[in-house]
Amino acid sequence: MTETEQILEKMMQTDAFSQWLGIVIDEYRLGYCKLHYTIRPDMVNGFNMVHGGIIFSAADSAFAFACNSQGIISVALDVHIAFICAGKPGEVFTVEAKEIYTGNKTAFYDIITTNEQGQIVSTFKGTAYRTGKLVL
Amino acid sequence: MTETEQILEKMMQTDAFSQWLGIVIDEYRLGYCKLHYTIRPDMVNGFNMVHGGIIFSAADSAFAFACNSQGIISVALDVHIAFICAGKPGEVFTVEAKEIYTGNKTAFYDIITTNEQGQIVSTFKGTAYRTGKLVL
Amino acid sequence: MTETEQILEKMMQTDAFSQWLGIVIDEYRLGYCKLHYTIRPDMVNGFNMVHGGIIFSAADSAFAFACNSQGIISVALDVHIAFICAGKPGEVFTVEAKEIYTGNKTAFYDIITTNEQGQIVSTFKGTAYRTGKLVL
Amino acid sequence: MTETEQILEKMMQTDAFSQWLGIVIDEYRLGYCKLHYTIRPDMVNGFNMVHGGIIFSAADSAFAFACNSQGIISVALDVHIAFICAGKPGEVFTVEAKEIYTGNKTAFYDIITTNEQGQIVSTFKGTAYRTGKLVL
Repeated sequence: MTETEQILEKMMQTDAFSQWLGIVIDEYRLGYCKLHYTIRPDMVNGFNMVHGGIIFSAADSAFAFACNSQGIISVALDVHIAFICAGKPGEVFTVEAKEIYTGNKTAFYDIITTNEQGQIVSTFKGTAYRTGKLVL
Repeated sequence: MTETEQILEKMMQTDAFSQWLGIVIDEYRLGYCKLHYTIRPDMVNGFNMVHGGIIFSAADSAFAFACNSQGIISVALDVHIAFICAGKPGEVFTVEAKEIYTGNKTAFYDIITTNEQGQIVSTFKGTAYRTGKLVL
Repeated sequence: MTETEQILEKMMQTDAFSQWLGIVIDEYRLGYCKLHYTIRPDMVNGFNMVHGGIIFSAADSAFAFACNSQGIISVALDVHIAFICAGKPGEVFTVEAKEIYTGNKTAFYDIITTNEQGQIVSTFKGTAYRTGKLVL
Repeated sequence: MTETEQILEKMMQTDAFSQWLGIVIDEYRLGYCKLHYTIRPDMVNGFNMVHGGIIFSAADSAFAFACNSQGIISVALDVHIAFICAGKPGEVFTVEAKEIYTGNKTAFYDIITTNEQGQIVSTFKGTAYRTGKLVL
């Protein structure tokens, strides 16, 4: 197992909320994470659409996995999310987290969620603080 | 029951994810919502801290309840969240959503999450689009 | 002159602050704008680096030009900017604004500023409200 | 002169762009800055309203002054701005920057711009990285 695979395994094992979200990792490498999940009936808001918190949470997990792939424990400082397209139970959303820049103390990522038609559901920009402690 | 109380009842009844979060509404009136919830072991991330998505989600629910209190179906367009202080299972977080400004087509809210020591856990700025359709 | 060129000409003529910034348009078409400008000594902050407001302003102009290219007067609602790399007088910054999505009432853009070495200086995510009034 | 006053003097002297903006400091103390400025005809955008970059820039200056008041050189990482109300030449805008939280490596501020009628023109949330170097 590579170091990157060990990091992912360690993070996923204890990440109870990502497990509840039903996240499935499709690709994982240095500075990158792609995953998907299915909207369930217990993920809706008061208008029977997917709750914004679900879209944020799955993107936030992809962000955490991607920026911790570098081996340094990194925590989210700031996130901006734009909600572009809604979703309903049964739909499958794909999330792709890409590194924009990693510095000594900070890291910047772009995380895009798309639906099965390839439409952008949300854009998510995340800034992380790199604590200096090792993930493994 | 006032119209505002009817709106809250209607939204909470169908909001399955807010129910999963264990949200308890403490105060609700025009342009305002205060609620609390308890961090559970199934709400943690890969570092055994509360997942950022949980903090976002509860704040997003408070935002939705507060801006729909005006009677017009309003949907989140943009949110910026800053994560200031972490949390662990067992802690109780309080969320307060306050209107900054409501225009014809848009509304702006400030949502603050605090812990039991009164420390700010996160700040959340939300912009909503007012669809023009009635909630009730 | 195409309608898109007329829109740009009309906006640039009256945009006194973009003129002060010394903005030069390199490419302009539907949903897209690319421009550059040179950091001058009167654009610095208290640490003799380019003021964050300058980076924001030039990106905001590119955002405005790009989203008004559609012919509907559009105004910025929300912007998130991340500052990744600093700059000094004499440097030339390039700004590229790309449409993410344009709906009936809202539009979402991604605006990236880079320096002459191709490094990302800042990322800028902008959400606009489309007023429905015509630019021309 | 107190240390806080020396910091402000040092920053303002070299901050050429804040001088161009015509910023006048009204109050300055640890973690706080209040200032005002007047919208001039050379500060407008293509629709003859105050350019969003001007509103951002003056708020960014207040943010920089406030977070450097602590004596540690601090640089902006992330900013979210919401544009709530427009403005025209001749109007006077007041900007108030307040500390939300200052940690070891990061600081969070809330900056509000209001017009002469007391209406909120924009909200600005800023996150800064504290470099560890001294301002003086």
